[in-house]
Amino acid sequence: MIYPKIPMAQTAIQLCKAKGVKHIIISPGSRNAPLTIGFSNDDYFKCYSIVDERCAAFFALGIAQQLQEPTAVVCTSGSALLNYYPAVAEAFYSDIPLIVLSADRPKHLIGVGDGQTINQKNVFESHILYSANLKLDLRDIENGIEEELPIFKSLENKAETLLGLKKTVQEYNEETINKAINTAILKKGPVHINLPFDEPLYDMVNELSVAPVFIAAEDKPLQIDDSILNACVKDWNTASKKMVIVGVNQPNQIEKRWLDVLATDNSVVVFTETTSNLHHDAFFPSIDKIIAPLKHEDFEMLQPDILLTFGGLVVSKKIKAFLRTHKPKQHWHVDLKKANDTFFSLNCFIETTPNYFFSEFLPKTKRIESDYNAYWAHVKQSRLKKHDDYLKSIDFSDLKVFDAVLSSIPNDTILHLGNSSTVRYAQLFNLNKTLEVFCNRGTSGIDGCTSTAIGGAVARAEQTTLISGDLSFLYDSNALWNNHIPNNFRIIIINNEGGGIFRILPGHKNTENFDTYFETNHHLTAEHLCKMYGFKYESVSDEITLQSALGTFYSEDNQPKLLEIFTPKNLNDEILLNYFRFLR
Amino acid sequence: MIYPKIPMAQTAIQLCKAKGVKHIIISPGSRNAPLTIGFSNDDYFKCYSIVDERCAAFFALGIAQQLQEPTAVVCTSGSALLNYYPAVAEAFYSDIPLIVLSADRPKHLIGVGDGQTINQKNVFESHILYSANLKLDLRDIENGIEEELPIFKSLENKAETLLGLKKTVQEYNEETINKAINTAILKKGPVHINLPFDEPLYDMVNELSVAPVFIAAEDKPLQIDDSILNACVKDWNTASKKMVIVGVNQPNQIEKRWLDVLATDNSVVVFTETTSNLHHDAFFPSIDKIIAPLKHEDFEMLQPDILLTFGGLVVSKKIKAFLRTHKPKQHWHVDLKKANDTFFSLNCFIETTPNYFFSEFLPKTKRIESDYNAYWAHVKQSRLKKHDDYLKSIDFSDLKVFDAVLSSIPNDTILHLGNSSTVRYAQLFNLNKTLEVFCNRGTSGIDGCTSTAIGGAVARAEQTTLISGDLSFLYDSNALWNNHIPNNFRIIIINNEGGGIFRILPGHKNTENFDTYFETNHHLTAEHLCKMYGFKYESVSDEITLQSALGTFYSEDNQPKLLEIFTPKNLNDEILLNYFRFLR
Repeated sequence: MIYPKIPMAQTAIQLCKAKGVKHIIISPGSRNAPLTIGFSNDDYFKCYSIVDERCAAFFALGIAQQLQEPTAVVCTSGSALLNYYPAVAEAFYSDIPLIVLSADRPKHLIGVGDGQTINQKNVFESHILYSANLKLDLRDIENGIEEELPIFKSLENKAETLLGLKKTVQEYNEETINKAINTAILKKGPVHINLPFDEPLYDMVNELSVAPVFIAAEDKPLQIDDSILNACVKDWNTASKKMVIVGVNQPNQIEKRWLDVLATDNSVVVFTETTSNLHHDAFFPSIDKIIAPLKHEDFEMLQPDILLTFGGLVVSKKIKAFLRTHKPKQHWHVDLKKANDTFFSLNCFIETTPNYFFSEFLPKTKRIESDYNAYWAHVKQSRLKKHDDYLKSIDFSDLKVFDAVLSSIPNDTILHLGNSSTVRYAQLFNLNKTLEVFCNRGTSGIDGCTSTAIGGAVARAEQTTLISGDLSFLYDSNALWNNHIPNNFRIIIINNEGGGIFRILPGHKNTENFDTYFETNHHLTAEHLCKMYGFKYESVSDEITLQSALGTFYSEDNQPKLLEIFTPKNLNDEILLNYFRFLR
Repeated sequence: MIYPKIPMAQTAIQLCKAKGVKHIIISPGSRNAPLTIGFSNDDYFKCYSIVDERCAAFFALGIAQQLQEPTAVVCTSGSALLNYYPAVAEAFYSDIPLIVLSADRPKHLIGVGDGQTINQKNVFESHILYSANLKLDLRDIENGIEEELPIFKSLENKAETLLGLKKTVQEYNEETINKAINTAILKKGPVHINLPFDEPLYDMVNELSVAPVFIAAEDKPLQIDDSILNACVKDWNTASKKMVIVGVNQPNQIEKRWLDVLATDNSVVVFTETTSNLHHDAFFPSIDKIIAPLKHEDFEMLQPDILLTFGGLVVSKKIKAFLRTHKPKQHWHVDLKKANDTFFSLNCFIETTPNYFFSEFLPKTKRIESDYNAYWAHVKQSRLKKHDDYLKSIDFSDLKVFDAVLSSIPNDTILHLGNSSTVRYAQLFNLNKTLEVFCNRGTSGIDGCTSTAIGGAVARAEQTTLISGDLSFLYDSNALWNNHIPNNFRIIIINNEGGGIFRILPGHKNTENFDTYFETNHHLTAEHLCKMYGFKYESVSDEITLQSALGTFYSEDNQPKLLEIFTPKNLNDEILLNYFRFLR
């Protein structure tokens, strides 16, 4: 077996292995050679080489999201690291365990004008769960003692802490790496490990020179404070209008028996977002279809006594606007990590998993007489009818295309949606319940949707399909510069020649300024990129050829495929706005 | 005239105008609509629409670099901003005035789970000269008083400061924007202005509602402490070995009379890097050609008594290695802003411009008997001869191609060099003295070389040519997604199918791991991207067709052009390593 000679590199690699960090995305560089050598020579790791660090980090995010296990990116020193930032922020807000391993120069070579050198320490400070700044020698530890104090918090004061520093550099680094990876695992999010390496960088050895201590990531047992639970039960049992909203949520997280309890409670309506991966005939998917046509008096009827939320960020702007003006009397959020006060009425953060909460809570609750659910179930049915009627009546356009595309997707597909019109359009449809749906809603950026989907496709054997707008796709075109894309991966681009979403907004459409700076008009297609990167390309611009193309699009092939659907940009916004009018 | 209704947007735009920030690069978004509306409706500004913020910021950097005036980028809220970071860091280390204007949500909508929302405040903290966090209301100021204290430092303490806050939000914002832009102008570097906008975002008015106070950017008069100057003169006059090294330096900065004084002093050798844009027959360009073949005893002869440096970062690793082991007795650095202790021997930071320093210093100096220059001038001549002999003897390869390409470039071209093999190869040649040479050596990243060159090409009427490696070019391929590329812009790609530079390093070549993770082998070309983005494409892979292609490459055309030169990756490193052996 070949190992890098540098003990710090051995330590990081051994601890990744011990903690099950298996997928390693490496970007080329020289300073990171010790890590590259170590990871790529150990068969335990599955390594991927991706040059553009922005894509590399989103690709890693896609893998980590699918496997729900920490995934590492490895880069050289300098601005390489900064290109990880968009994905780090997405991981931060989407609770995805992403481990950034950045090689750095030794401290004495930083700030002296050496090449590929920046201030890497704590560079993601605003969007990272933990930054581990590894040390090359003992002085580094002593100088850094105050900033690192949390690690030594059991010691009484700095003087004692320094005394306690029988701790060697190696011990410090082991402890810090353990803490970083454990944080990524337990708190589910990004961590940054910065590794200063001195030359020589390429030396190898046949035996490990260090055996780093493994500190297990120990989860606290799940529990809810009795007083909180009892108060919740009491309020729940007397509330006749209870609303549940589920944001971004991993598939198969919530036990079906609890969903059944909620679904059959007349006093409960459950709004599920497309990204919630939660289905029940009695639930209310495609929230905007319900909310958009409502008037003031309807809102008062819908306004809940108790709002219970779980899952990540909510896509629907309409439900946010509604609940911010018609606040629930109480808002409880259930999550192991954090609670956003999205509707400015959060009064109870229940710090556990939804499943555990339901198992403790629902058996204690009682039903109450209510026609809350029945009323809105009726509304839902009538909207569904109108939705179908409208879809039949319209011309070829974004909305029509989404209907055709979403209903064409085979069972058990892993579906990635781009930001932001794509995910918003998808929210208007009742999706096939066997799909698993993902979208980068942490920061809602267009910067890495394709890379994330490709990472996901690599991690899962099932077919992965990405639906994307043209701007998101072009933005992340380097995603295709990737040797690992499976042949069953599919991309569908809905190309309306720019940021069609801006046409929906209240800007001044059809002026030159609007076209240039908001819609960002272009006449580009994905065809050349497909030729360049080995995708089978097909394009359509009407309904008949679309249906025919979709008929064979998902079938097995010897290369990944991309279908580009051109829609009429001047029609799309009108058809969507009329849709909401029609629903009334 | 149309203005955005929001006063904060009016203020930022009016102050940009008052301070000569003319070039505005806008990326699409909704939150930044007030800025987009304002900038794009005022003919004073030259606006550009670029979707990928990473490219947009490097493009702006290219403009700012050429014009030496602050250039602004404008983006929406969320991860958009993070994509600016690589260019912000480059601007930070390369002293380029880049103004980042980021739209943000109001404070109460941050951290509550809204879309496209991150912690934008101070996000570039480690690599920015100033972060202006504008405020929506007075409470924001009071809460932020401690962090903003530098602005109020004339006031005695916080209590008084708060009393002093008759200051309105508008006054605060005006002061802060003035300070930000003035910092960019005076200190030459990146600043960040974060603008929280509340809805409605698209409202327009026909009259300005605010008239922001203009605070001029006042430069301190140039001066040098007499005691420092006299001490320098005294030491200079008695030193018989004086070395001058010039790093990255804008063209036409140093008066010719001072260069002549240095050039004719027998006790002085002047090493000029390719990026120094400084020429004199008596100077020593292509440093590595001198240093690489030297032995221990030669180094002792070359070791200077006094090392005088000016300009930005130094590319040559060989001269860094030499001077770090053979330290000068003294190292003086002349710069208005900062001094890097690149050679661990800095003892004097002369805080002024090189021109001013020379004008005060050189007239006071006396010549001293020395054969330092004569000896090394002789070495230079013999190296030049060997260089020519070797170039005649070698096969078609990177080195040969650089010889052909660099000598083909027409007079007065603005030449951009990619990182990092490109700039290193270029350093081996004596370049045409009429060229102006640029390279992103602040962070030495490959992430924005093409975008920077395109920005430069837009800013200057003269022909701009970029020479780039294949990885750098592919990395920044979105650079070509740009409607402003002039027809006289040229790109030359030297495609050795991966990171050829890694073959020079001491890694284990020709193993699968090396090819995959270090060299990052690929078979991509620029052809499809050229078709996609309207570049005329030509490719060559031997000397004869290369010469023929170069013969017409720079002539006028109705579209920009790209020449791709394929070189044999397995030969390049051997030919380069033998070059250094041959020079001995």
